[in-house]
Amino acid sequence: MLRVNESEFMQFEPRKKARFINSLTGFKSVHLIGTQSQSAVSNLSIISSAIHLSSNPPMMAFVIRPDVVQRDTLENIRETGYCTLNHIHAEFLEKAHQASARYDKEINEFQECELSEEHLNQFPAPFVNESQFKLALKFIREIDIPENKTHLMLMKIQDVYLPKEILDSDGFIDYNHLENIVVAGLDTYYQPTRIKRLSYAKPFKDLKTIE
Amino acid sequence: MLRVNESEFMQFEPRKKARFINSLTGFKSVHLIGTQSQSAVSNLSIISSAIHLSSNPPMMAFVIRPDVVQRDTLENIRETGYCTLNHIHAEFLEKAHQASARYDKEINEFQECELSEEHLNQFPAPFVNESQFKLALKFIREIDIPENKTHLMLMKIQDVYLPKEILDSDGFIDYNHLENIVVAGLDTYYQPTRIKRLSYAKPFKDLKTIE
Repeated sequence: MLRVNESEFMQFEPRKKARFINSLTGFKSVHLIGTQSQSAVSNLSIISSAIHLSSNPPMMAFVIRPDVVQRDTLENIRETGYCTLNHIHAEFLEKAHQASARYDKEINEFQECELSEEHLNQFPAPFVNESQFKLALKFIREIDIPENKTHLMLMKIQDVYLPKEILDSDGFIDYNHLENIVVAGLDTYYQPTRIKRLSYAKPFKDLKTIE
Repeated sequence: MLRVNESEFMQFEPRKKARFINSLTGFKSVHLIGTQSQSAVSNLSIISSAIHLSSNPPMMAFVIRPDVVQRDTLENIRETGYCTLNHIHAEFLEKAHQASARYDKEINEFQECELSEEHLNQFPAPFVNESQFKLALKFIREIDIPENKTHLMLMKIQDVYLPKEILDSDGFIDYNHLENIVVAGLDTYYQPTRIKRLSYAKPFKDLKTIE
């Protein structure tokens, strides 16, 4: 087992340091965020920081780093109050990764990434048509983290669009049929396959596998 | 494509609602957090909300819900200022899932989950011996989110322990050899396998696959 301490890894050259530290939490979720500017330019960015926060109220959050490409996303959410969160499937992972390039504000990343905008039920932000699982999110508030100049965006879940056949009657969603991907570090994509579903854990009780 | 809107899913019965909303961000990272109380009782809990925050300073964060089992984790981090974050591999996923059971404060979850405590370099929180990839974390501060009574814990990365052979000289970490898992929803575990690594995205440039 190798030990790398803070004073060692902080002396790595900048790209090595970014690659290493970005990899330390292991597999990360990865999503496309769709927004629209006040002048109606659609914007698309890729994030790897979405987390579930609570079921009541139905809240999730993600982090935006203003010094990188997602600045337009941040401004659009502040101005309009809405965004979409679109799951990424293996079949369009290259197009999704291209959304991490630093495009100018007037550029529509949907076009540059060769992904299709979709407008659903008058929601004021564009969805990714190629994504089979997408959320309509409403901005609650922003938590600024001055230590590293990032912004945690607290969002309320308003609408869920998903394939009917992956939702069970008990609320379980079967992701084994969706080819969703995860990312490790900055650039390496993985596809998860199901190992098993386990019963609710209780003290001093054996777990069961749920088929 | 099925649409489920907020007024519909908020009327699901409680367990169905929790299962559904917990699944909406797709695959989530999953880790074991090790802490020690002031009276030297070791504590272990499982979280699915760890996110990378920044490389400089080397920061990550995770969410603790005080109404569930991780309350001891929250108190221990507040009192001692430290915790460990341990990656979970497929071979001990049942033991890790058992850490989600609500044990009393005086119970040592390492013992109940049949996982081994490991103490490394005088760090004041226990590591999981079975985990091949683990971080020593120092508490920076806590952000309370009153909307859902959760706590976002901001942590600094002090030490990284990992197998020497998965770290490349450029800082790249090859997770394909570690059998780390991810979780969807509350209880379903998946194992990711590598699809591909892509080059840094630039506007109007084609991506390349990195072998």
